[in-house]
Amino acid sequence: MTAGRRAAGMVMTDAMADLLERFRDGQVPALARAISIVESERAGFQDLLHEVMARGPRAKRVGFTGPPGAGKSSLVAAAAATYRAAGEHIGVVAVDPTSPYSGGALLGDRIRMNDLATDAGIFIRSMATRGSLGGLATTTKEVADLMDGFGFDRLLVETVGVGQTELEITAAADTVVVVLVPESGDAIQAMKAGLMEIADVFVVNKADRPGSARLVKELRQALHLRAGSALKDIPAHHGVDLARIAKKEARNAAPPVSPADWAVPVLTTNALTQDGVPELLEAIDQHLTWLEHGGQLDVRRRDRARVRVRDVVARELSREAWKSEEVTAALDLGVDRISKGEETPYSVARGILASLLR
Amino acid sequence: MTAGRRAAGMVMTDAMADLLERFRDGQVPALARAISIVESERAGFQDLLHEVMARGPRAKRVGFTGPPGAGKSSLVAAAAATYRAAGEHIGVVAVDPTSPYSGGALLGDRIRMNDLATDAGIFIRSMATRGSLGGLATTTKEVADLMDGFGFDRLLVETVGVGQTELEITAAADTVVVVLVPESGDAIQAMKAGLMEIADVFVVNKADRPGSARLVKELRQALHLRAGSALKDIPAHHGVDLARIAKKEARNAAPPVSPADWAVPVLTTNALTQDGVPELLEAIDQHLTWLEHGGQLDVRRRDRARVRVRDVVARELSREAWKSEEVTAALDLGVDRISKGEETPYSVARGILASLLR
Repeated sequence: MTAGRRAAGMVMTDAMADLLERFRDGQVPALARAISIVESERAGFQDLLHEVMARGPRAKRVGFTGPPGAGKSSLVAAAAATYRAAGEHIGVVAVDPTSPYSGGALLGDRIRMNDLATDAGIFIRSMATRGSLGGLATTTKEVADLMDGFGFDRLLVETVGVGQTELEITAAADTVVVVLVPESGDAIQAMKAGLMEIADVFVVNKADRPGSARLVKELRQALHLRAGSALKDIPAHHGVDLARIAKKEARNAAPPVSPADWAVPVLTTNALTQDGVPELLEAIDQHLTWLEHGGQLDVRRRDRARVRVRDVVARELSREAWKSEEVTAALDLGVDRISKGEETPYSVARGILASLLR
Repeated sequence: MTAGRRAAGMVMTDAMADLLERFRDGQVPALARAISIVESERAGFQDLLHEVMARGPRAKRVGFTGPPGAGKSSLVAAAAATYRAAGEHIGVVAVDPTSPYSGGALLGDRIRMNDLATDAGIFIRSMATRGSLGGLATTTKEVADLMDGFGFDRLLVETVGVGQTELEITAAADTVVVVLVPESGDAIQAMKAGLMEIADVFVVNKADRPGSARLVKELRQALHLRAGSALKDIPAHHGVDLARIAKKEARNAAPPVSPADWAVPVLTTNALTQDGVPELLEAIDQHLTWLEHGGQLDVRRRDRARVRVRDVVARELSREAWKSEEVTAALDLGVDRISKGEETPYSVARGILASLLR
């Protein structure tokens, strides 16, 4: 890595070098400190990430996503306990912006997690999102990379699957488990939300509730549709043209992995009684085996690297742009002119861009 | 605006000029087309926004945010109906990424909205978020600006308040109504989620349910805490140090508006029976009056303009960066080297940045 490091002109302070040494020595406080440095983007955080990531990704990464209240944390806790019992070291990144709303999830689930937290073989980082406008997605991945570099065997990444955040998990995990409950709505809604594209494994949790068998059936049907077979024979449902959506899904899906390669299973669990949890963990392992043997793991890691480079370049370009006093003065002046109705944000931005790109 | 436009080097195609003419003529299909151009960032969308925003913001902007299932859409529909009855022209931007999960909200609430949608004095845009990773926040504001420029008297912007998205609404609205339900959890959770900072009006909807009186009381107490009075006397609650959180809230709050300026009301509603809706609309009007008379409206609009310029500059910088074939080739090569363990995304990004900033 030395050549790459020199080429990129990285310099490491003594404090950072010391932190890195303790990090590599497996000292948990150094991991916590590194996460804090990255989260707050303190000076040198990019160099720290570069050093930590130099040995490449090694941990198995499993993502859990789904709507608030679906029981993701309980499943993550059950999975973590099982993996720990098998001797694995586990890192958990929980990004749960809705927990404030989910009726005690923040306190309840974290306390359930806390049973595990006294175990030295598990490290849990619950990321708040307050004030992190725009920065969340990148930071989640970076925290996962720090944990990977620290040497955990497996990472469990839990995110709330609402809109944008659901895509975040594909950038942080190799295997994505989408957790739904009968109350989540029907499979049409899951399709529209793009969940068919990101799920490697579907779980219907709280499977003892009414409607779970129907949701399982619908999901299987929707997955079958997505595979592109029998697209014409699908009747409209709730006034929605299923076949059209399925075709659109199939077109948008990238990379095109046919179900012959990996048949997305639809499982049922009850996280409280642990029913179905062993089967879920087995499906996760099977998917990982498929990823490794079919070459897909490398494809996913390359995609992830590509997205990361783009993210880092975008972040640093913005940072560079606003460093200049001339540019921030132009912004101040521009805001005045916008306020007076003499300009718009677009003409001001264009002027600033012209000076930056000169 | 002509000078600003020339200075910024904007050119408008005939098709765009034609669209703009129809837009200014108040033709609804031209508005729909403009939104579509902006959402898909088609060529010239920045020029279009510049032209549309040239006359400055005029519409009253009210944001509704809160957890899924709190009844935001019903309140928005009730508000829209009342404003329509008073002769106002209303634009609605609904950003509801969780609707796929909320058990029929997508179909149910939109159908309720559809009662209004046959009215020519109201325009509703429901924004899907699928595939819009990262672009949602900016696009929401831009769609609101298009509607403002089209000439609606009032805009109602509805977002799901989960993490990042909750900050989005402060960038799109002058008055922010935070809608909670007794099931949303307690006031501590609302504080931790940063809702105390963004709410201009709190509404506890579905107020007939158990726990609503308690939530109202807690919210009022929390607002009182946030005002900075009696910070020491607050006992711990659920193991959480209330006073410490309140102090942190007070420190982080920006701009510092003391409650002497605006006392955030905590109201109760029942959107189905319309109980409390008139009082809510009155509170919104009072807040708007306070904004206008106290000079805060200009402060908020300036803040919004500043954020927008920064967003646009960031987006365009990224767009410029990846235009160059040399840079995309460096990315491809970099991904190969990362895959082989010879580099990390950070060293590759740094190399690309060095060539961009040369």
